[in-house]
Amino acid sequence: MAEYRLGSDEPHYAWDNSLEAKLTIDSGDTVTIHSRDAGDGFITWDTELEDLGKREFKGHALTGPIAIRGAAPGDTLQVEVLSLQPGELGYTTFAPGRGLLPEDFEGAFLQKWDLTKDPTPFRPGIAIPLEPFLGVMGTARAEEGEFSTGPPTANGGNMDVKQLVAGSTVYLPVSVPGALFSCGDGHAAQGDGEVCITAIETSMTSELRFTLIKDWAVPEPQFKTPGPLTPRTNTEAWYGTTGHSPDLLEASKIAVRHMIDYLVRVHELTREEAYILCSVAVDLKVSEVVDAPNWVVSALLPDSIFVDA
Amino acid sequence: MAEYRLGSDEPHYAWDNSLEAKLTIDSGDTVTIHSRDAGDGFITWDTELEDLGKREFKGHALTGPIAIRGAAPGDTLQVEVLSLQPGELGYTTFAPGRGLLPEDFEGAFLQKWDLTKDPTPFRPGIAIPLEPFLGVMGTARAEEGEFSTGPPTANGGNMDVKQLVAGSTVYLPVSVPGALFSCGDGHAAQGDGEVCITAIETSMTSELRFTLIKDWAVPEPQFKTPGPLTPRTNTEAWYGTTGHSPDLLEASKIAVRHMIDYLVRVHELTREEAYILCSVAVDLKVSEVVDAPNWVVSALLPDSIFVDA
Repeated sequence: MAEYRLGSDEPHYAWDNSLEAKLTIDSGDTVTIHSRDAGDGFITWDTELEDLGKREFKGHALTGPIAIRGAAPGDTLQVEVLSLQPGELGYTTFAPGRGLLPEDFEGAFLQKWDLTKDPTPFRPGIAIPLEPFLGVMGTARAEEGEFSTGPPTANGGNMDVKQLVAGSTVYLPVSVPGALFSCGDGHAAQGDGEVCITAIETSMTSELRFTLIKDWAVPEPQFKTPGPLTPRTNTEAWYGTTGHSPDLLEASKIAVRHMIDYLVRVHELTREEAYILCSVAVDLKVSEVVDAPNWVVSALLPDSIFVDA
Repeated sequence: MAEYRLGSDEPHYAWDNSLEAKLTIDSGDTVTIHSRDAGDGFITWDTELEDLGKREFKGHALTGPIAIRGAAPGDTLQVEVLSLQPGELGYTTFAPGRGLLPEDFEGAFLQKWDLTKDPTPFRPGIAIPLEPFLGVMGTARAEEGEFSTGPPTANGGNMDVKQLVAGSTVYLPVSVPGALFSCGDGHAAQGDGEVCITAIETSMTSELRFTLIKDWAVPEPQFKTPGPLTPRTNTEAWYGTTGHSPDLLEASKIAVRHMIDYLVRVHELTREEAYILCSVAVDLKVSEVVDAPNWVVSALLPDSIFVDA
């Protein structure tokens, strides 16, 4: 089984099954992949909030595609996430009109994180343990043309599933010959929901092993975790808020609003800081989706991020 | 601080702030509450699937209301869940037209569980650890009249939040003088989502301590867990399926359908058994709700329920 390396010097910014493979490998091979952060390296330690508007987001900066010899539509591509190493700089931002609560936040915000520290400090007494994963892993779609990297599809892409940490195994559909795998959008930590629209965004070095499965066609991404969930944050008690609504999106908004109020009231954060904290550390759960007409979404905040100041 | 006991011999089946209190206590008092299962004790070890249609569900059988002296609208009622003891019989059912996937399951199903065993056996090689909680805890609403116990509201009720295990603390709004707390719908175990519409339903003996909070009005139920989440099931790896859709309900349905397919394919269950297993053991997470237009819901199945046959 061969080992390869693929750099981040030639990212692509859209899904397009006509892109030429940067690397062609055999089933069973391992590739160490460098990927830029989703924002293509625009944000540095020197970036100020005012600079954010100067850049147009043209799509996640993805590394790939990687072709796997013999991959054919109907196969499943097994991707073992052997290791993940985030960069030294992380950032979380939100901007008007996007995220779960655009009606609540009219301004923009920029939070930088020092990822050489783990947990990475936020405010005095608050630090986030790193549980890195790739926000985007996917294969090329069957349809011809250029497609935005924004929405996830049956081929994966921008799934933002925080359980895909090192040691996990991901199963992706193969829709074109060679599969054409790409990845990027490194996250050093994220809550289920990624509510402000960014996690702790960072570049990533990922060691991935690719194996073709010929006798099973996964319908859309599935995965296996390496062990218990969120072992870094699930060490102490959690605080939970609930939101009920006939619509799960609305229930999610309500639960997050209550959590923001809680963080402002009890932990004396600004509303903007609380929104950022929800995006990187608060997990949204569908508590019940059967007690018609009101579903319940719970937002859970781990005590473990509160540390000695 | 006094200690009381309240039996389950006179349940009520609707929320109604004109109900006379069965017990009046002071802030700080503890009550050991017996509650019938949600189905009012209709299902016994002798009940057959054909019997299910003979009964009309008139509402969850709730114990209460309990009045707390001095409770006034705008207060918060703190309920400490000191201990929970499920009954010896548990059951999980689904019936046509209800639950998350009524279009997929035309028939009815009845599963009984022996709760004297922990974990409680399901099929050879599968057993569910007990993580008991009350599906219904709530206070009377401000509005006059009789209201169904089915949908949860800002006053709590049928929340089905599985994190409310022994050791947790729940905060409920007070909307009428005395608060008028009731509870029931014991669950011996449940997945986030309760997708088939029932958990492992059971009677419950609950030791609850009630304390009034005068300087904070919780807007809808919030809670604090006693420690790490789902400590009984989060001990090994998990298998995850994902569903993407512009609608979180549809994404939930897709993720659960994929999990049912997985359980049928890999663990050789019938589709009905798989649906039951999802309802009692699979947790639904909102993975992302910001990558417009497609949100992702993940369904996670704990390896820990698979045991030596």
